Amino acid sequence: MSDELRKGLEGVVAAESALSNIDGDEGRLIYCGYDITDLAREASYEEVLYLLWNGTLPTRAELDGFADSMAAERAVDESVLAALSALADADEHPMAALRTGISMLSAAEPERGADPLDLDAARRAGRRIVSRTPTLLAAYDRLRRGEEPLDPREELSYAGNFLYMLTGEEPTGTAEETFDMALTLHADHGLNASTFTALVIASTRADLYSAVTGGVGALSGSLHGGANQDVMNTLLEIDDSEKDPLEWVRDTVAEGGRIPGWGHRVYNVTDPRARILRAKLEDLSADTGRDKWLTYTSTIEEYLVDEVGLLEKGIAPNVDYYSGAVYYELGIPVDMYTGIFAMARTGGWVAHVLEYREDDRLIRPRGRYVGPEPREFVPLDER
Amino acid sequence: MSDELRKGLEGVVAAESALSNIDGDEGRLIYCGYDITDLAREASYEEVLYLLWNGTLPTRAELDGFADSMAAERAVDESVLAALSALADADEHPMAALRTGISMLSAAEPERGADPLDLDAARRAGRRIVSRTPTLLAAYDRLRRGEEPLDPREELSYAGNFLYMLTGEEPTGTAEETFDMALTLHADHGLNASTFTALVIASTRADLYSAVTGGVGALSGSLHGGANQDVMNTLLEIDDSEKDPLEWVRDTVAEGGRIPGWGHRVYNVTDPRARILRAKLEDLSADTGRDKWLTYTSTIEEYLVDEVGLLEKGIAPNVDYYSGAVYYELGIPVDMYTGIFAMARTGGWVAHVLEYREDDRLIRPRGRYVGPEPREFVPLDER
Repeated sequence: MSDELRKGLEGVVAAESALSNIDGDEGRLIYCGYDITDLAREASYEEVLYLLWNGTLPTRAELDGFADSMAAERAVDESVLAALSALADADEHPMAALRTGISMLSAAEPERGADPLDLDAARRAGRRIVSRTPTLLAAYDRLRRGEEPLDPREELSYAGNFLYMLTGEEPTGTAEETFDMALTLHADHGLNASTFTALVIASTRADLYSAVTGGVGALSGSLHGGANQDVMNTLLEIDDSEKDPLEWVRDTVAEGGRIPGWGHRVYNVTDPRARILRAKLEDLSADTGRDKWLTYTSTIEEYLVDEVGLLEKGIAPNVDYYSGAVYYELGIPVDMYTGIFAMARTGGWVAHVLEYREDDRLIRPRGRYVGPEPREFVPLDER
Repeated sequence: MSDELRKGLEGVVAAESALSNIDGDEGRLIYCGYDITDLAREASYEEVLYLLWNGTLPTRAELDGFADSMAAERAVDESVLAALSALADADEHPMAALRTGISMLSAAEPERGADPLDLDAARRAGRRIVSRTPTLLAAYDRLRRGEEPLDPREELSYAGNFLYMLTGEEPTGTAEETFDMALTLHADHGLNASTFTALVIASTRADLYSAVTGGVGALSGSLHGGANQDVMNTLLEIDDSEKDPLEWVRDTVAEGGRIPGWGHRVYNVTDPRARILRAKLEDLSADTGRDKWLTYTSTIEEYLVDEVGLLEKGIAPNVDYYSGAVYYELGIPVDMYTGIFAMARTGGWVAHVLEYREDDRLIRPRGRYVGPEPREFVPLDER
């Protein structure tokens, strides 16, 4: 047994998984063998969830049954909305509201207390969590704007219903399709910190609500889920400044500043998710006739690639570089972006927990004591 | 880089810590160099918290200042009590209620949004979480009994105030002292699964509320926090049965049944925490004149040691063997025991997060993909 400290567990293989694989050199991401590009373009988020939870793509009948049960489970209890309303009054961050909201959902779980190793029950609980997460987020945003939450609509798709509940308007076809793609692109990504959190929690045989609540907490950290928000805030700053995007990127590079949304620990080439989102940003811009963010992101990208040669150094646009602008065009408030990421990734957390439980083992690494040697206790009044 | 799968991360050293050390062969547990037996007998839980968060035992003046700030921060907002009330109406498990309650506390955090690496701000946030956790638990138990939560009382100790808020009566000296000891004994125990969960979450730079909420979720799992409840339920079952404890243990051993509260992955001799709690169970029994659980646990222990020779096999009573009976004598409902464990361990979770942040690194192990090779996408209607 090696006594080497594995800080951050870097390089330690903690689990095997059949869910997603990242090829950072080729810029390829697959879910259960299928290329993310095909899934994003040709499958709905509901299909992708079915794939991640069952290992196979559904037939039309399977998909209909699955999507119908999800659509029927979107509503959340009044007591949960009341708690969200109190959090909105306190101006709480949407990720903290989501963490509380998901934790609270367990009270309405009809199979509460089921054996955690009963995978069918766990799959149904996971379906309920994923179905209700958009309702929590949309309700929270409306409550903090002083508006009433809208009831979910069963006849809309998962993506379409969220945009409807958030904005009060049925989304255009392009908007719905774009958001559906964004959800698919964020559904899973190997054993990242939030997915690993969900596994550690579930490995004690805690329920899925505990695992997903923990995942939301982990994703809320700035080293994990917050980057798409940074990109959009930068674009908004450029817009507010005296500079045009070309001047801005030139000056920032000259000053050695950081360009958010570029570079990824795993990808050395363009993140495949970024390519797809860029195409959708073009579609959205064509649809709305507004091309400001497309122009900004393209101008900066061209400069960084052609003039600075970042691509040759293995620094490429990542998924966050385009998702911010896409969400902005969809009417989603900037501080909700990490929540959208959580909403998409909840499907992945559930998938990993279901998979881990097939052959579970308590996750319990060792710590090494480096504190004081045994010393004598000194009573309070003699200190 | 080894590609070996480290399932459960068994034996992998994930962090160094100066907080607690377990010597399983000697049956010794130390916090920051001090023997747990001395700390439990001679220091208050507040002193132990100060030790874990600062690395040194406080002087009288330091302790007074620290305990006073904790006592002043015990109250929780009405909106949190309203959420707990809704959960009580749904008959939610106390651990799920605690998970939601702690998550919700972040809305009232005056330093919300502080830089997570600001350790002073984090220490204050941790103090607030630990101060309010007993209030959440006691309020929840009263609400589900149809009683109004009681306001915390600043002039009582941490342990005494909890027992007062739970039962509505000021505890006896022995009861307060016993509960204070139990809190100290459960405050920290190396890198267990819930502590590790808190570290993984905090390593993304998520806030302490996220880390502690995750810890509660992990502790709620039956492989982690639930054993003291199992012991007490067994004692109650014996009491309800036709058998006396000696008959019960004889029959159970003969049938190859499991005796809850015996054996520990780390200790080969009697868990030092069990020895201390046994002594306090004797004190409590002398105080109340009720000695049923003391008789039951002693009878079973004598049989297992003298007749079965479990001790020689390295199977000894662990902390859970006596804590259940102790909590029962203190008037704590059986399904609250894991919550009591969480209440005590919250101090340890906070201590570990504070320590990890001094030199933090994102905790992100590798997963190994074992799923299908890349395969061609088949459109829905061709499946």
